[in-house]
Amino acid sequence: MNEDLHGQIHAIGEAARVAARVLAITPSSTKDAALRAMADRLLEETESIINANALDLEAGTKNGLSEAMIDRLRLDEKRLKAMAEGIRTAASLPDPVGRSLKEWTKENGLTFRKISVPIGVIGIIYESRPNVTSDAAVLCLKAGNAVILRGGSEAIHSNKAIASALQAGAADAGLPASSIQLVPVTDREVVRILCEMDRYLDCMIPRGGKGLIETVARHARMPVIKHYDGICAVYVDKVADLAMAREIIVNAKCQRPGVCNAAETLLLHRDIASAFLAEAGKLLLDYGVELRCDAAARSLFPDHLKANALIKEASKEDFHTEFLSLILAVKVVDSVEEAIAHIDSHGSHHSDAIVTADSSTAEKFLQGVDSATVYWNASTRFTDGGEFGFGCEIGISTDKLHARGPMALEELTSYKYQIRGSGQVR
Amino acid sequence: MNEDLHGQIHAIGEAARVAARVLAITPSSTKDAALRAMADRLLEETESIINANALDLEAGTKNGLSEAMIDRLRLDEKRLKAMAEGIRTAASLPDPVGRSLKEWTKENGLTFRKISVPIGVIGIIYESRPNVTSDAAVLCLKAGNAVILRGGSEAIHSNKAIASALQAGAADAGLPASSIQLVPVTDREVVRILCEMDRYLDCMIPRGGKGLIETVARHARMPVIKHYDGICAVYVDKVADLAMAREIIVNAKCQRPGVCNAAETLLLHRDIASAFLAEAGKLLLDYGVELRCDAAARSLFPDHLKANALIKEASKEDFHTEFLSLILAVKVVDSVEEAIAHIDSHGSHHSDAIVTADSSTAEKFLQGVDSATVYWNASTRFTDGGEFGFGCEIGISTDKLHARGPMALEELTSYKYQIRGSGQVR
Repeated sequence: MNEDLHGQIHAIGEAARVAARVLAITPSSTKDAALRAMADRLLEETESIINANALDLEAGTKNGLSEAMIDRLRLDEKRLKAMAEGIRTAASLPDPVGRSLKEWTKENGLTFRKISVPIGVIGIIYESRPNVTSDAAVLCLKAGNAVILRGGSEAIHSNKAIASALQAGAADAGLPASSIQLVPVTDREVVRILCEMDRYLDCMIPRGGKGLIETVARHARMPVIKHYDGICAVYVDKVADLAMAREIIVNAKCQRPGVCNAAETLLLHRDIASAFLAEAGKLLLDYGVELRCDAAARSLFPDHLKANALIKEASKEDFHTEFLSLILAVKVVDSVEEAIAHIDSHGSHHSDAIVTADSSTAEKFLQGVDSATVYWNASTRFTDGGEFGFGCEIGISTDKLHARGPMALEELTSYKYQIRGSGQVR
Repeated sequence: MNEDLHGQIHAIGEAARVAARVLAITPSSTKDAALRAMADRLLEETESIINANALDLEAGTKNGLSEAMIDRLRLDEKRLKAMAEGIRTAASLPDPVGRSLKEWTKENGLTFRKISVPIGVIGIIYESRPNVTSDAAVLCLKAGNAVILRGGSEAIHSNKAIASALQAGAADAGLPASSIQLVPVTDREVVRILCEMDRYLDCMIPRGGKGLIETVARHARMPVIKHYDGICAVYVDKVADLAMAREIIVNAKCQRPGVCNAAETLLLHRDIASAFLAEAGKLLLDYGVELRCDAAARSLFPDHLKANALIKEASKEDFHTEFLSLILAVKVVDSVEEAIAHIDSHGSHHSDAIVTADSSTAEKFLQGVDSATVYWNASTRFTDGGEFGFGCEIGISTDKLHARGPMALEELTSYKYQIRGSGQVR
């Protein structure tokens, strides 16, 4: 059985390798035609995809998935239309492959051209949401990569139906159907086998829970681009515009608490902490945010708020936690340096913001905080491919190599050097 | 014992992390002053380094190292001067950190700046040559990274002496001595422990034999940039200038056969194979090159050469082999497409060249061959940081993510996004 599984996954890897060779030299117009055909097929197959999805929903309900999980799993006509729209948008974006990244000529007459090329074969390992099947496949194909998808068991029927529609679309445009492959087995062993297939896979992108990502990081023999957690902080400096700071923390915490770029920590300069908590603290409490405060912060609330049941004592752990809900850890600091040091040792180097009217303090923060995105006077919620103007996004990389922060089409490419000469030797 | 070792390596990791935080915000002028002080210290310590090296040479001779190995191990005044000169060159190069890689503004008024930053802590695992200790440390420091070096046991005394001189130089300029650390133990267990320290190490660069690189790739939890083998090919097309092709293959094979960018395979278009072998084949034989030929190539030598003992039958394995010596695998092909397919399945995606007078065939090759560097009418020997104009080189990456091909200062940096606003929220 396990040997069968091995053989099956290896065959998928081999087919992907073959497809990648074709995709690497496929012109932009063909790739875009394939994407449009994929959108068409997805809409044509609406009924069968929704039927497949019903099987997943039924199993999910039986297995006691939460309402939120069921909702993330659910596909309807509207969601499929949005998916197809996303594919058409990708088709309209410029080709990330074939860009000239740098050109120069040496004294010996050799001309150097650094040019973007596809990575090759990319493995995407993800959980629950079936729309990832489409998003990931589409972006990989647009960047000339073959993709091997391994989704979660909760969405297996939906994923199979979506992948099969996408494959048909790719084939309509003359591309190998194996440009997009979904592993039809959700056995955990599959992840381990994929991790060992450095012969076929050039890169692995795990998206999902910490356990999944750690498993892949530990076992993968090929490069991995991790999409870890976001423990993001907002620091309000002593000379901040407090009304602006209030808007920013409320937005960063409350607008969509379940995502990685939402704030989990509020750092307050001692000089403004009391005034800020009286106004912004109250507003956060009104929004239902539980404030887990260090001793200093707790003592600085105005008396009429102190008894609010949402104000709690923070544990040490709270400042290392990605709550993904309406909980905020609050701490008083004495300087921007202390804020930077706290973020460095407690945060996840994802997105952090300073609110200040002092540009030299801001620059200190922007330089000193080693995170993928650092903000001055703006909400951490802008860490997103769309908000960055990338037009799409495969995720937010928490790695420092190859891709950091919002990862879109350019980050799905590698490069090579083309060197043209007239007989030069050393 | 093993727990002691664990503790020792972890302490090194922790100290490197602390140093990295300091280096990240150290101005260029201080880093360059440190580099110059390191060069000074290296020269001042010439005697003690040469004495330490004598211990390694003695042990090497006792352990039966080959003459070539002993020569690579040997340090003398001249080599130390060259090392110091290399450091001064690095000091004079522009700082790779703080470059603005891209800037843009969105309609909402947010300004985005993508800026280069150090990677953090880099682990370099290498074998034999003690000059790597200096080269790697210097480039890492110039790019604002702390480095943990783990050299081979053959060079341990030399490496310790060099690292201690470099540390002293860094300290002279006020940088933490732990910016540069050499693991003083060469136990194999050290590599395993380093591979698990993703808490401290942001990246691992193994340089050396295939076994070492595979061990690191298999066990590392952090990103790895591999420096694997070079199975490089030169393809002579049917419309090539055969005199130019001859110069190129002789240079690519003979000028320095022991390096990764030397050619190991010669592919000949059937139409010119006979003419080319009569001239270039003879020249290669005169240089003492053993030609391992497929049946077609063997049959196409002129009669007066056929009996030459250096002409041998190629095995299948020969076309997958990095000889690193005066051996060349020779094969006849019928088209540029066949050459590309051969290189794709037999080569190591390092450096490959076409010699042709036909620009459309050349473009087919430059696009179709998926290697880090692809040449038209030039020797593969130019795959080198110096020849590229990078001013230095940490090695040739055979990976496709983050860094591909010659890897120098820019490739030792990551980036972050600095986003400046005026209170923007989503």
